[in-house]
Amino acid sequence: MVAEGLIDKETAVTRVKAEHIDLLLHPRIDPNAKLEVVARGLPASPGAAVGKVVFTAEAAEEMAEKGEKTILVRTETSPEDIGGMAAAQGVLTVRGGMTSHAAVVGRGMGKPCVVGCGDISIDTKSGIFMVNGHTIKKHDYITIDGSAGSVIIGKVELIDAEISDDLKEILLWADEIRTLGVRTNADNPADAGLARELGAEGIGLCRTEHMFFGEDRIPAVREMIMAEDEKSRKKALKRLLPMQKEDFLGIFRSMEGLPVTIRLLDPPLHEFLPDKEELDAKLRELEASGDCGKIDEVKKIIKRVVSLKELNPMLGHRGCRLGITYPEIYDMQVRAIMEAACELATEGMQIVPEIMIPLVGLVKELSITRKEVCKMAETVMAEKGVKIDYKVGTMIELPRAAIIADKIAQEADFFSFGTNDLTQTTFGFSRDDVSKFIPIYQKAGIIEHDPFAVLDQEGVGEIMKIGIEKGRSVKPDLKMGICGEHGGEPKSIHFAYEIGLNYVSCSPYRVPIARLVAAQSTIESKNKIKSLS
Amino acid sequence: MVAEGLIDKETAVTRVKAEHIDLLLHPRIDPNAKLEVVARGLPASPGAAVGKVVFTAEAAEEMAEKGEKTILVRTETSPEDIGGMAAAQGVLTVRGGMTSHAAVVGRGMGKPCVVGCGDISIDTKSGIFMVNGHTIKKHDYITIDGSAGSVIIGKVELIDAEISDDLKEILLWADEIRTLGVRTNADNPADAGLARELGAEGIGLCRTEHMFFGEDRIPAVREMIMAEDEKSRKKALKRLLPMQKEDFLGIFRSMEGLPVTIRLLDPPLHEFLPDKEELDAKLRELEASGDCGKIDEVKKIIKRVVSLKELNPMLGHRGCRLGITYPEIYDMQVRAIMEAACELATEGMQIVPEIMIPLVGLVKELSITRKEVCKMAETVMAEKGVKIDYKVGTMIELPRAAIIADKIAQEADFFSFGTNDLTQTTFGFSRDDVSKFIPIYQKAGIIEHDPFAVLDQEGVGEIMKIGIEKGRSVKPDLKMGICGEHGGEPKSIHFAYEIGLNYVSCSPYRVPIARLVAAQSTIESKNKIKSLS
Repeated sequence: MVAEGLIDKETAVTRVKAEHIDLLLHPRIDPNAKLEVVARGLPASPGAAVGKVVFTAEAAEEMAEKGEKTILVRTETSPEDIGGMAAAQGVLTVRGGMTSHAAVVGRGMGKPCVVGCGDISIDTKSGIFMVNGHTIKKHDYITIDGSAGSVIIGKVELIDAEISDDLKEILLWADEIRTLGVRTNADNPADAGLARELGAEGIGLCRTEHMFFGEDRIPAVREMIMAEDEKSRKKALKRLLPMQKEDFLGIFRSMEGLPVTIRLLDPPLHEFLPDKEELDAKLRELEASGDCGKIDEVKKIIKRVVSLKELNPMLGHRGCRLGITYPEIYDMQVRAIMEAACELATEGMQIVPEIMIPLVGLVKELSITRKEVCKMAETVMAEKGVKIDYKVGTMIELPRAAIIADKIAQEADFFSFGTNDLTQTTFGFSRDDVSKFIPIYQKAGIIEHDPFAVLDQEGVGEIMKIGIEKGRSVKPDLKMGICGEHGGEPKSIHFAYEIGLNYVSCSPYRVPIARLVAAQSTIESKNKIKSLS
Repeated sequence: MVAEGLIDKETAVTRVKAEHIDLLLHPRIDPNAKLEVVARGLPASPGAAVGKVVFTAEAAEEMAEKGEKTILVRTETSPEDIGGMAAAQGVLTVRGGMTSHAAVVGRGMGKPCVVGCGDISIDTKSGIFMVNGHTIKKHDYITIDGSAGSVIIGKVELIDAEISDDLKEILLWADEIRTLGVRTNADNPADAGLARELGAEGIGLCRTEHMFFGEDRIPAVREMIMAEDEKSRKKALKRLLPMQKEDFLGIFRSMEGLPVTIRLLDPPLHEFLPDKEELDAKLRELEASGDCGKIDEVKKIIKRVVSLKELNPMLGHRGCRLGITYPEIYDMQVRAIMEAACELATEGMQIVPEIMIPLVGLVKELSITRKEVCKMAETVMAEKGVKIDYKVGTMIELPRAAIIADKIAQEADFFSFGTNDLTQTTFGFSRDDVSKFIPIYQKAGIIEHDPFAVLDQEGVGEIMKIGIEKGRSVKPDLKMGICGEHGGEPKSIHFAYEIGLNYVSCSPYRVPIARLVAAQSTIESKNKIKSLS
């Protein structure tokens, strides 16, 4: 119609619905298929997937090696399941909300995912799960629809994902129209490359901790955590340095010429240690078998796990609080970033690193950490004889940070609103625990959307506005973006445009949607001005 | 000097220091008592205490639940002991100086404390401690004098805290001068009565959950939590009703004629169930002994504990979120409050109940709960044929509540700033976990005071100001107070006055300090205005 002159590009862009793009970017269920939907959960990550039921990440990985497709069915997932999630076609969990681990990782991977399907009860011992009167055995086929939240018995025909040339053209028009930047959240070169192909203009959030979970890294990470003094901690970090550097080399190459925002270590250290109950069970086993050599080792780990235990880890010893108490961790990470950047710059590449300090709430947390970061960056650049134009900024993810954003801005080259954490603290909601009452709240009309899925404009949005206004009162051109899960959600993208953010950052598969919605926001605002004049 | 006309009342009030009052406000040893002082340590926190010797925080807590008084004897204390310190009458440590953990926490709690008593050697395995030739067994009585640093064998008669006539007079002058109200945090008639004697003008926070932990109540509370449907939950609640009512009858009598702010149930339900590790151990024991009958029961409790488990309970299913998902709990509590109030009113007493809804972040949480509360209140008043002037208000303890305080004010008769929770969410700090980094932060100059001890004016204070301004924009006369731990801390009381709160609420022993500081704030502000004109 645009080619025929019937409508203009703006009208064309306006007519495409975000939901449609989302559907086109993932395999979907044949609308004509006869389905036996046995349960419903939350539609946590779009697309449909078919596979044989497995109950452990290891099983998913083993089956994938044999070329078998699986659906990973878990009570809930944890960082240790990431390999299995990647190997499976889709993930189904009994617990968790729209920003539970499974949901966030699923969307990040573009992996269909249904979470919080409370009707399911898993009996791993017998290798079955039960749901609403049906019993499904290990290796039985099921199909899940992560766009609808449905769980279906058996193997359903799927229709493949495809971006048509028409859609590609419309997205290029959207790029011409929009003023809001679109970046991606990516932690590895493959995701970064995929996102770039889908139109991302840089990385808005590279979570460095995901790199710590690799099978080859976790022993060094644990050695670092178990270290009893700075010296042995530094020794363990030295082992991690080349691996972290390798990660950054790959990511920088994928994003050559574009900004890459890297968040320094954020989660509490206990996330990298084994679970206490598992360790206790192991200890009892060893004690029964009388294996005295290993008993002491396990006891030592248990002691460390206990000493790191927190009642509310989300509000605990994490983010820049770690960076300040163990500066050698951030030192290693900054060295890895800058060594990688310098080496690629020497090869003639343009590398644009943006180092981001998480969980800042007090000005001095940022000023002290920033000073350390810059010192290490200058040291590495001097060693390599290269000058890189790097930036140091911060997340605004605590109400206190927004409230004192004028002071924080003086120490920051950019702001990135971490709307997941900001939603948690503004509401006093734990994203891992809300699934117990959010559905009841929605039914009772107390809240319309899950605030972890759709940004809460009335509360969280107001706090963001305070942060933006105060930040720009000091630095009018301060670059600001959003890197929470909301960066890929249409209503939230529109809000990000309205409050004057420079960019949104979202998972790779949501980049095309963000491009479209950003353009639609520009058009809508233009039309509003027109209708007023 | 005032009597002699040398200084005026204002000058007299200004000259008294808050710290001095603190000394006078604790129980002390009868000067005529015959004492067997067996050792001396540092006088770390004033006041004398008598109790049975325990060696672990858990033991102190268990004994407190049974209503037994204890002295916690430790080599040194750590943050994990805080619950036990609160539960004990006093704390005695072998190591540590005037700013050791035990000393600082003890003073904060107003808990008598002797530290650094190096003559003591503890043998936890045998359950004894030895000191200068004496052997003291677990559960033997000892007395400590935290003002003198002495350790005494046996049970010594204590003289209750009392205020001298001079101090009483100065405090009466303070009452004439001050405009800021002073209430108390009290959960039982004894504390309420004590606080009233010390000058409290009502209860600002009555935590109803403390009443649930009594030995006679916990079985009914657990039955309520284990209930599988509304009907059996209601049955268990019916058992609790007369006990709750008895509590309120006592508290109302103590506070006759003064307002009593009662907070409906706030903590997550799992706090009332046994610990998972304990249950697991019990299960293994039962399985070993083959006691099949009890195995199922324990398994059922474990299942419920697991289903209630939260990763971040502070941000979880608590406060009004419980009231909305299980309305029958609040129904029972409101019935107990109103039946007690009506019965006393029939006896001719003036009862002023203020029912407070905790953890509101969304307007509809309050409007729905308020409607339920009023419905029950009207029902009870109709049954009893009495009219009581009751109020329904809310805590402002989440940043979101402050941000939408104009909307919340439309549904609230009063606001009470819960500055403990507001500090947690504004900073993203868990008060149970901060001890791992706050001391490091203080040493590094990142933060001056522990924000849970001294109110953070820059961040939390700013959010309070937003809440006050927005709330009063709708209801200019909306009564507002503060009921966090900060209500008894001089700097924070001064701030509460400055931002225009109507009252502070603090623990009974801090009421005289609050009266004094409130008056000093008025004087300071008058002098400031004078010096400007």
